[in-house]
Amino acid sequence: MSGREFFTARTVTEALAGFRPAHRTPVEDVPLAAALHRVPAEPVTAPDPLPGFARSTVDGYAVRAADTYGASDGLPSYVDLLGAVRMGEEPTVAVRPGGCVAMPTGGVLPAGADAVVMVEYTAETMPGTIEITRPVAPGGGVVRADEDVAAGAELVPAGRPLRAPDLGLLAAAGVTNVAVHTRPRVAIISTGDEVVPPQVRSPAPGQVRDATAAALAGLVADAGGEPVLAGIVGDEPGALKARLTEVLPGSDLVVVSAGSSVGTRDETAGAVAAVGEIWCHGLAIKPGKPTLLADCGGIPLIGLPGNPLSALVVFGQVGTPLLWRLSGCQRPPPSPSARARLSRDLASAAGRLDVVQVTVRDGVAEPLFGPSALLSVLTRADGYVLVPEPATGLDAGSEVEVVLYR
Amino acid sequence: MSGREFFTARTVTEALAGFRPAHRTPVEDVPLAAALHRVPAEPVTAPDPLPGFARSTVDGYAVRAADTYGASDGLPSYVDLLGAVRMGEEPTVAVRPGGCVAMPTGGVLPAGADAVVMVEYTAETMPGTIEITRPVAPGGGVVRADEDVAAGAELVPAGRPLRAPDLGLLAAAGVTNVAVHTRPRVAIISTGDEVVPPQVRSPAPGQVRDATAAALAGLVADAGGEPVLAGIVGDEPGALKARLTEVLPGSDLVVVSAGSSVGTRDETAGAVAAVGEIWCHGLAIKPGKPTLLADCGGIPLIGLPGNPLSALVVFGQVGTPLLWRLSGCQRPPPSPSARARLSRDLASAAGRLDVVQVTVRDGVAEPLFGPSALLSVLTRADGYVLVPEPATGLDAGSEVEVVLYR
Repeated sequence: MSGREFFTARTVTEALAGFRPAHRTPVEDVPLAAALHRVPAEPVTAPDPLPGFARSTVDGYAVRAADTYGASDGLPSYVDLLGAVRMGEEPTVAVRPGGCVAMPTGGVLPAGADAVVMVEYTAETMPGTIEITRPVAPGGGVVRADEDVAAGAELVPAGRPLRAPDLGLLAAAGVTNVAVHTRPRVAIISTGDEVVPPQVRSPAPGQVRDATAAALAGLVADAGGEPVLAGIVGDEPGALKARLTEVLPGSDLVVVSAGSSVGTRDETAGAVAAVGEIWCHGLAIKPGKPTLLADCGGIPLIGLPGNPLSALVVFGQVGTPLLWRLSGCQRPPPSPSARARLSRDLASAAGRLDVVQVTVRDGVAEPLFGPSALLSVLTRADGYVLVPEPATGLDAGSEVEVVLYR
Repeated sequence: MSGREFFTARTVTEALAGFRPAHRTPVEDVPLAAALHRVPAEPVTAPDPLPGFARSTVDGYAVRAADTYGASDGLPSYVDLLGAVRMGEEPTVAVRPGGCVAMPTGGVLPAGADAVVMVEYTAETMPGTIEITRPVAPGGGVVRADEDVAAGAELVPAGRPLRAPDLGLLAAAGVTNVAVHTRPRVAIISTGDEVVPPQVRSPAPGQVRDATAAALAGLVADAGGEPVLAGIVGDEPGALKARLTEVLPGSDLVVVSAGSSVGTRDETAGAVAAVGEIWCHGLAIKPGKPTLLADCGGIPLIGLPGNPLSALVVFGQVGTPLLWRLSGCQRPPPSPSARARLSRDLASAAGRLDVVQVTVRDGVAEPLFGPSALLSVLTRADGYVLVPEPATGLDAGSEVEVVLYR
């Protein structure tokens, strides 16, 4: 057994089930305007009932329902108009038997009334007298004071990122701050003597600009994290260990995109082993086999392959779910997807998860092949198809679920 | 014909096809770290070829391919080891016939070589002599200097929001700033004497906190816009017109959530007519009929129904596509969705788009009914089902596409 196979290789399923650090980000209070897609640490409950008063749901007349029973076009009921409720104000008049009060949609139901008849079924036949041509049941045209949300009831659950409509219900309940998990801080370290920053105008022959860090930063942001670009570390012994020691205390997750050659991959594993415990070295995923997962004193670390496409694939499959977990999320948001027919056979090995980049046109998923070193696949793909671990491949023409990039 | 039906009602299809303001947001330069999901105004092209040098895709030995022809386990080829290429550096040695140079993955192909044979098919049988047991074709194990992207070729298209992987390719090409459309500034105005800010601790009877503005702000952010909460305007004559006149100059889109009663809806239409041209008043959508679309000197305006759920439904169907268009986007990102079976019949009217809130459990979409005034539906729904305009309903058990909230 060679040195680079010393550590245990795992399947992606094993990694998702078994590599589950207990670390969670702390909790902070944020205003509603900053709470979109943040994860509440506890269920948020209603301080008071909603809407808080019995409220008309229609334009019409507040009545005692019994005064409308049997009303029809042929035999209307007639009630006295006692006054009007104004929007946003408490009623100044009550409803007595044989009387009614004009109501706007959303107005407060006056005392004595138990229903609102819609204006469409009424007419003011004489000044001060309202004709009603349809009966209304008690409670008709009205929401009760606590019908929307009872005091103390849950407004939004813990562990599910807040969606735009959630913010509306919280605002209605007067909840203007929410206790949410802080965004996980993700330190992104690139390694390799050949790697230079994107700012370098004319790299020397052999040098390549760092593609992985910028793309990873985007994936981290998409998963609710806060990317922290922690720079490029050369292959000299000790350099990576020193950088890891530096960034670990301020991070919730550390991601190292390894150099692409065997030597630098071994160097990465050595540095990681010096600051934490390696959980697996080698993942049954294609592309992305030389992946490393480690626990550094409670802070998870992902060692990604040096190939940018492989690194992004692995981060999507392993890093994104991990990031949601770190931020206390039990129900990550759904990914966009599309059903499509596969244009050709895809071969795979049983026990390995294959992630195949595809374009989708007119319902056909066309795999993008070519040297894995090509970066342009990153922008040409519309999404990817998974060949699941138990499968040995997928047949041309079979219907597949394409996870779409957004 | 009553006053409130004076303006033209339209279908949603007509609105999406016909209400297409020419206004686009201006263009600004942003660094890559701020470019995620922003919309490039022009295609971004590669200043130089990528990777920029012929590059090894494997660990192994750079050779002349001809020296490996016919090599096999039984009859290996033998070549002289002339030196090694170091990562990130220009080769200091060339390959001559019968010779080879050790290569790391990603290294620069030395002069004289036209292929790299994988280390797996080699052995250093004697110091300085490499045994090769598989032939390699010219170009094998190598990407050409412009194989990934040719100089001047398109890296990312205009009009498609930048995805995380796009940022990787741009970084690799040394593009560190991108010219993108500014986020559309969306002024959100709430109207109604009964509406008070979410901060009000104990609203008086009849008052309701503004739910719509907070939720709309979230929808605007999700569609790449910048929400600007422009406050609450009462029902007094002239107030809305004054606020519109104030916010229009700094906005790319204005959204007014109208008061919920007939009187305030008429008031909204009057104020809008004073500052712009009403394109339609009334939309064949349920919920959301009392929607108004207008062009205010080139700036589009959406008058939303007073009911918060209706307002969000209409904004999702009409406002979100409009917002993407304003930011120069021709290919909005896909929405998450799921196939599910409908638990019960849904009735609709032909010519009207029905948007039905549903929960999804175990592949079953369960419509959420109840008074439309209830806000709690906003957080209970997992998404919605569309009953298309031509349909008169959907049958229980039929397979539907649920657009999921995220």
